[in-house]
Amino acid sequence: MENGKLKIGITQGDINGISYEVILKTLIEPKVYEPHAVVLYGSSKVASYHKKNLDLTLSMTVVNTALDAQYGAVSVVNCTDDEVKVDLGQSTPVAGQCSWQALQRAVRELKDGMIDVLVTGPINKHNIQSEQFQFPGHTEYLEREFGQGRQGLMLMACESMRVAVATGHIPVEEVPAALNQALILDKIKTLDKSLRYDFAIDKPRIAVLALNPHAGDEGLIGRQEQDIIAPAVEEARKQNLCVFGPIAADGFFGSDNYMRYDGILAMYHDQGLIPFKALSMGHGVNFTAGLPIVRTSPAHGTAYELAGQNLADESSFREALYMACDIYFNRLRYEEMHRNPLRKQHIEQSGGDDLPPVSEEEL
Amino acid sequence: MENGKLKIGITQGDINGISYEVILKTLIEPKVYEPHAVVLYGSSKVASYHKKNLDLTLSMTVVNTALDAQYGAVSVVNCTDDEVKVDLGQSTPVAGQCSWQALQRAVRELKDGMIDVLVTGPINKHNIQSEQFQFPGHTEYLEREFGQGRQGLMLMACESMRVAVATGHIPVEEVPAALNQALILDKIKTLDKSLRYDFAIDKPRIAVLALNPHAGDEGLIGRQEQDIIAPAVEEARKQNLCVFGPIAADGFFGSDNYMRYDGILAMYHDQGLIPFKALSMGHGVNFTAGLPIVRTSPAHGTAYELAGQNLADESSFREALYMACDIYFNRLRYEEMHRNPLRKQHIEQSGGDDLPPVSEEEL
Repeated sequence: MENGKLKIGITQGDINGISYEVILKTLIEPKVYEPHAVVLYGSSKVASYHKKNLDLTLSMTVVNTALDAQYGAVSVVNCTDDEVKVDLGQSTPVAGQCSWQALQRAVRELKDGMIDVLVTGPINKHNIQSEQFQFPGHTEYLEREFGQGRQGLMLMACESMRVAVATGHIPVEEVPAALNQALILDKIKTLDKSLRYDFAIDKPRIAVLALNPHAGDEGLIGRQEQDIIAPAVEEARKQNLCVFGPIAADGFFGSDNYMRYDGILAMYHDQGLIPFKALSMGHGVNFTAGLPIVRTSPAHGTAYELAGQNLADESSFREALYMACDIYFNRLRYEEMHRNPLRKQHIEQSGGDDLPPVSEEEL
Repeated sequence: MENGKLKIGITQGDINGISYEVILKTLIEPKVYEPHAVVLYGSSKVASYHKKNLDLTLSMTVVNTALDAQYGAVSVVNCTDDEVKVDLGQSTPVAGQCSWQALQRAVRELKDGMIDVLVTGPINKHNIQSEQFQFPGHTEYLEREFGQGRQGLMLMACESMRVAVATGHIPVEEVPAALNQALILDKIKTLDKSLRYDFAIDKPRIAVLALNPHAGDEGLIGRQEQDIIAPAVEEARKQNLCVFGPIAADGFFGSDNYMRYDGILAMYHDQGLIPFKALSMGHGVNFTAGLPIVRTSPAHGTAYELAGQNLADESSFREALYMACDIYFNRLRYEEMHRNPLRKQHIEQSGGDDLPPVSEEEL
């Protein structure tokens, strides 16, 4: 960052899907990214192909690295062979290779501090697999690169809600066994921290959903609510987090109840993603919480069936770009605010005699 | 039915919840039920209590049975002790007993043909349990009374969609084992028949949802799609049903894709109910398909927390009443249209030599 101006890295994603279309449609309006610099990791040739196909005019400067990118402009770092072939709507090995090359390069420059945030274009999880990339998706790869052994938290955000999932891309039959009190508590804490640190919410209210229909109906329809989820919520409350649940998921999203919470923790993929996608109306953003770097992406996939037809809606990508910048600045402010905290003081209270004196370590 | 006029039975549900409130607010407008007769199975005293509490004026005639109910008016069949005590917002044994007495009486008169359709007020599944009523809810009880050994199908309907669930009130961990090809095929066929018979849709298009995230992602995230759901869909297609799937649930409800189908079969409770409640905006109706009688109910519960505060929204109950009547007349028309079908004829086609001759039995 330089004088409040960021370098925003964007990966091209799958060159045969709608990724380039949503990127180009977003960037055609300079107000969207000004005064920041945009660095597209991809291919100027492929970008030209899509611009021509969509009849869009957008000036881009080819640069060697993000260091050379100018503020208030769009630059391209060529990551792939010049002779790459675009096959609109097709999953091809070449497209997978291009996705990977762009992502790898962007991550390297992010590590080197050349870009400040990363917005990833949608990839195809099948064609990107290679010796070097063996992950279900971006999230798991970025966890390895930046997580320092900790898992990230998949968080979907739009204007009316933020939903995280306790378990991710696993079969439904594996969900109950994957859930335990420690995992749920950990996810609650990661979500809480992200809401404060990334979304600038001072004392976030978190709703934790039940696993079973009707929240298990007092044990009639499953016991995970009583055995696992409620104790995790209880423990989080003891740690002074503002957490509620387990809450039956259908009524929660069927009323305006879900709007009363700053964050929602769903127990499994579809439980969180179905209502999020149904209610976010195409403006949702996927954010990987719990990592030291900022990465967002649109909440849609490659959508091969729409590729090249000028039918893709860029709203979600645009929101992803805005959100990446917002989170960057929120983190900065959070760190500034917490840099020089007031010294903790031992205040005498009625009944406070049993408070331990503050040790040097705590100060 | 008499000259196109129906007798609409309504059960009082739980006297301590919002059931009476939504019933009374619906019936206060005679246009909602005219020219039909409304028969409320409950208690004129409890009705008076709620009318007074809500400051509503609504005239009701006490009758001995639905036979005495007048068209264009609201009648009450007293099913419970006159000295019943209402405890707003509380689950009490008395309320459970009242729910059961009203339901039992309504079912008896429905069996005897005294009423034509049944709209049930929300009950509490815990306090209604007794020696005679040991069911998770209305659906299972009505299956026993009217199903002749067949299961009903829980179907939620609103203006923009109709969603049925392949499995109902069971824990998530039991869902995968409960699903098999035969069950899914059976549910598809019941849904198809209901859409034609109850909703007057000539050739319904049905979407079958996947069980796992991303529809199993070609086997990476679960195999039920390939092993069970796809074969069931294939078999249904062979039987000339217009069925599609398995479809990943999150993207389906996140686009307007769900509006392109006449019916949706979800694999489990929350998968169907979460998007239904999120998108039906309080106007949803619960219908038990696959039974010879017509029974609808609002898509909400007793909502004790709102009881007696004049805050309950009657939209869902009103829609349930309308839908019960619509389904009754749709069935009637269907039966009339199919009473004297044209004789099937064996038409010579090119390559049709291998068609078997039509036997007498088929005609």
